[in-house]
Amino acid sequence: MQVAAELQRAHHHHQRHKQDTPMCRQIQLTISDHTTAGDDDGEDLFIPPLNFAMVDNGIFRSGFPEPANFSFLQTLGLRSIIYLCPEPYPEANMEFLKSNGIKLFQFGIEGHKEPFVNIPEDTIREALKVVLDVRNHPVIIHCKRGKHRTGCLVGCYRKLQKWCLSSVFDEYQRFAAAKARVSDQRFVELFDISSLKHFPIPFSCLKR
Amino acid sequence: MQVAAELQRAHHHHQRHKQDTPMCRQIQLTISDHTTAGDDDGEDLFIPPLNFAMVDNGIFRSGFPEPANFSFLQTLGLRSIIYLCPEPYPEANMEFLKSNGIKLFQFGIEGHKEPFVNIPEDTIREALKVVLDVRNHPVIIHCKRGKHRTGCLVGCYRKLQKWCLSSVFDEYQRFAAAKARVSDQRFVELFDISSLKHFPIPFSCLKR
Repeated sequence: MQVAAELQRAHHHHQRHKQDTPMCRQIQLTISDHTTAGDDDGEDLFIPPLNFAMVDNGIFRSGFPEPANFSFLQTLGLRSIIYLCPEPYPEANMEFLKSNGIKLFQFGIEGHKEPFVNIPEDTIREALKVVLDVRNHPVIIHCKRGKHRTGCLVGCYRKLQKWCLSSVFDEYQRFAAAKARVSDQRFVELFDISSLKHFPIPFSCLKR
Repeated sequence: MQVAAELQRAHHHHQRHKQDTPMCRQIQLTISDHTTAGDDDGEDLFIPPLNFAMVDNGIFRSGFPEPANFSFLQTLGLRSIIYLCPEPYPEANMEFLKSNGIKLFQFGIEGHKEPFVNIPEDTIREALKVVLDVRNHPVIIHCKRGKHRTGCLVGCYRKLQKWCLSSVFDEYQRFAAAKARVSDQRFVELFDISSLKHFPIPFSCLKR
């Protein structure tokens, strides 16, 4: 009987709670939960950007960082960001850069879909020079989803590190998944690293 | 007419080539190409192990390293390897460890398939302590395919770094892909980090 009473009280409480919380408020709560990422013993959790990963010492990659990712990005102590889209950087992101003394390198590569793909080799080469310059580290490379444009740049970096193509493509596909493009992989395969070969790669997996 | 003659000659060459190369020889060539990874201006390319990636400063992850991967692994300057399978380490890998002064930490976790999964929490906790100890860095964590056992250990490491669960799972799924297991992700979710909280994390994304 006591159990039944408990259940009834719980049920009543549930009903009342439901009435107090219309659908629109529930949605609001969900969004707010996402932004603060819940907590763990009262401490906030970090939300890395979509497709975030470490490429090498001082080099990171990701999808487009949102305000919810800013506290995580602060922990990386970034000196610069390489942004690979032509669209202007949002106000909130510009504010984040300013207040954290982060330099923005924007290379406007169009995000065409196959078969109208045209990754500009010269632009990737210029972006690669920024990646290779340790004075810009720690640096994060990002485009919109961290798959195609970012994948091409990281793929060319791996070629400079003398990775065999199958490993370069394996990494590309890990991030692009179902959206992997043959044209991107062909771009990386054909990308000529000879002009960058004598560029210093001051730290990397090869120089530990 | 000239074009037709060219085509005919090309066709003839192709036919002759086909006759000279029986199927079994083609397979042999493919395997040998894979082992030496071709070359680039006479220099050998590196073959990272399957599912290789950088987890954090001085921490790497991968699938089982084969002899073809040894020259790449040498570039990492590894001090230790965390091996998460119960099977004995192959002779060739033991030789590689000896000649490069690399310490082996073996934690024999069975590679059960769902629904018979039982990741031992204590073993993961002990492995995590080895990961966290900088005296073991650079360290590479690996199991067989670098998906499940390695994914669980890295997932617990991310919890210590205060990553939100959705980001931890996103990373886990990137490596496990079609083989992602709900049971592994539940294990990571329920894994209690409280006993490790005061363990020093001397460098990480959080301490740059």
